[in-house]
Amino acid sequence: MKVEIDLRMATGDGANSYATNSRLQKKAILETKPVLQEAIEELYMSLASRSTMICADLGCSSGPNTLLFVSEVMSAIRNYACDQEMDNRHAVEVQFFLNDLPGNDFNLVFRSLEQLQKYQNHIVGKENPVAPPYYVAGLPGSFYTRLFPGQSVHFFHSSYCLMWRSKVPEDLSSGTYLNDGNIYIGKTTPPIVVKLLQEQFKQDFELFLMLRYTELVCGGRMVLTFLSRKSDEMLMHGDVGRMWELLAEALQSLVQKGIVEKEKLRSFNLPFYAPSVNEVKALIKGQGMFNIEHIRLFESSWDPHDDSDAEAVLDCDQSGESIAKSIRAVIEPLIMDHFGGSIIDDLFLEYASIVANHLKKGKAKYPVVVVSLKKAIH
Amino acid sequence: MKVEIDLRMATGDGANSYATNSRLQKKAILETKPVLQEAIEELYMSLASRSTMICADLGCSSGPNTLLFVSEVMSAIRNYACDQEMDNRHAVEVQFFLNDLPGNDFNLVFRSLEQLQKYQNHIVGKENPVAPPYYVAGLPGSFYTRLFPGQSVHFFHSSYCLMWRSKVPEDLSSGTYLNDGNIYIGKTTPPIVVKLLQEQFKQDFELFLMLRYTELVCGGRMVLTFLSRKSDEMLMHGDVGRMWELLAEALQSLVQKGIVEKEKLRSFNLPFYAPSVNEVKALIKGQGMFNIEHIRLFESSWDPHDDSDAEAVLDCDQSGESIAKSIRAVIEPLIMDHFGGSIIDDLFLEYASIVANHLKKGKAKYPVVVVSLKKAIH
Repeated sequence: MKVEIDLRMATGDGANSYATNSRLQKKAILETKPVLQEAIEELYMSLASRSTMICADLGCSSGPNTLLFVSEVMSAIRNYACDQEMDNRHAVEVQFFLNDLPGNDFNLVFRSLEQLQKYQNHIVGKENPVAPPYYVAGLPGSFYTRLFPGQSVHFFHSSYCLMWRSKVPEDLSSGTYLNDGNIYIGKTTPPIVVKLLQEQFKQDFELFLMLRYTELVCGGRMVLTFLSRKSDEMLMHGDVGRMWELLAEALQSLVQKGIVEKEKLRSFNLPFYAPSVNEVKALIKGQGMFNIEHIRLFESSWDPHDDSDAEAVLDCDQSGESIAKSIRAVIEPLIMDHFGGSIIDDLFLEYASIVANHLKKGKAKYPVVVVSLKKAIH
Repeated sequence: MKVEIDLRMATGDGANSYATNSRLQKKAILETKPVLQEAIEELYMSLASRSTMICADLGCSSGPNTLLFVSEVMSAIRNYACDQEMDNRHAVEVQFFLNDLPGNDFNLVFRSLEQLQKYQNHIVGKENPVAPPYYVAGLPGSFYTRLFPGQSVHFFHSSYCLMWRSKVPEDLSSGTYLNDGNIYIGKTTPPIVVKLLQEQFKQDFELFLMLRYTELVCGGRMVLTFLSRKSDEMLMHGDVGRMWELLAEALQSLVQKGIVEKEKLRSFNLPFYAPSVNEVKALIKGQGMFNIEHIRLFESSWDPHDDSDAEAVLDCDQSGESIAKSIRAVIEPLIMDHFGGSIIDDLFLEYASIVANHLKKGKAKYPVVVVSLKKAIH
């Protein structure tokens, strides 16, 4: 498995594409809106007149949310400028970079930019004459490498990405240690495998912070949102772990049917780690490159179409299908690379049914952490 | 016809794609190498230490030449830094923006970046420790609109693009004036149509200069290469005009065979204009935003695979086919939009045979102008 090639969302805009199945990620962006607004306002206020504010979305994917980031930032700026009665003399321009791995469907993103421009022109009427001009570029590459010149970016945003690791730890992918039929941390995962995944997270996250520190201007900000864990206990992975345990179950049932080789499943592990809030805090503080302006956990139903507060699931079968679709959109290329394309339909049919059964016990939720950081002054 | 959608190179990397048929454009980049080097050296020299040099290629297309621009700039910088014995203290970084219309195949470009990176790492050995880091972004949009924040770019490059107009003049596309069976300026084109196309060029080129002036930093440079005309006489369009007259002949023969409606051909005009060197000079001087550092005309055989200096064509049939392929790669989407996809194979078979016949008289060449400009100080 080569994460840089296979960790991408399902392309195009068909029924199984990420573009059609990304409502969950949209909810996260809306949930973090106040944090984003606060960061953008502070940055905008600090800019000299006639300068450019550079904003980057890391792991932008290709779908409606990709441009949601652009419109959220622009709307935060418009509202702020309007409240402050700032006029055109401020003359700030905004340049966006939408980043993802080279396998991402950038063509789809670029072709939908025109619609966004039309919408922006529509809402920016005479009552809002201070909306700054903006420009949007695409930037291919892993955010675990340098992406920008030093001190050139004002704001980094990343939503639903940082739980993905740069790779499966070598001692796990090489087969030195085995995960006992799990594909992530499950009840039967050996402590050494837990440690390997935790170490990989530490290494990736520290690298990420160091790279972005170098690329941010003085006073630069980041808002990062990613899947998290409620408990600090390593094996209490809760609902996030459960989600992958159920997928492992679906894979095991394909092994039993003879569709998947047992050996294939034994060598499959997800490049994934959901840290607890305390783990995230400790790493950031330990490194000392960023001040934490804000950190909090919220929960989001597994089912992207479930907006209710109820603890019970109304239609488990429908919810199971909807969850299977949203997971498929995210990991289809990873699965295809390891197991081949022929198992996909069977796998997610099985997964939908296992999930539906699981939901009978009650609604399942992902814990999501949102953290707002400011570059520390040294 | 909507230029912003249909004026794009044939996608992918198949036999009829632009990627496979762009040797002509490659030759132009190599021909203009000394001019590009001179501009890059001057810019690089003027940069403060620890700053970023921003370079943009306008109309980058998707193929091997797209990244040729990046490697030419990087090689100019490496050689210069090596000659000057500059060391790492200069610490300049380079950021590239590859621009084209949103219909361009950016996915193909992004997926080939890794190969370029490998190649660069390979040639940058220990003998060349001063090669600066570089970053590559894609930027969708028409270069007849604003693409960058004000005063943010150091160097603009554009190769084989500026002969394309932003649109067919309205009085021509609406049918107010007709072009007598021509698709560009041909022998029977009425003077009013010539005037419309010339006016469109003037309007587009002045707009282009004004936009880039705003986007360039003080001292910023541009190197522009595009198809030109040897004579100042408007109807003496020479070989560039001839190329389109032969395509019009091929279309007329499809009309005679009943494959294309006469009315369809009457309403088809190319959004194209090849200016003479004097026209280009006069426009730039008249506007006063740029100083001309260098301007010259060179000639390039119609046949991308013909590298000889001989005036006769060795194998007219083979050359005809090769020319038809290179023209097809450039205008297939424009033709398909107007006439439908079903005529494409017939049309270019016919065109290849007409071109082969034409070549019996001797080799046909495009005149190409290369102009190096520097932002004027006011």
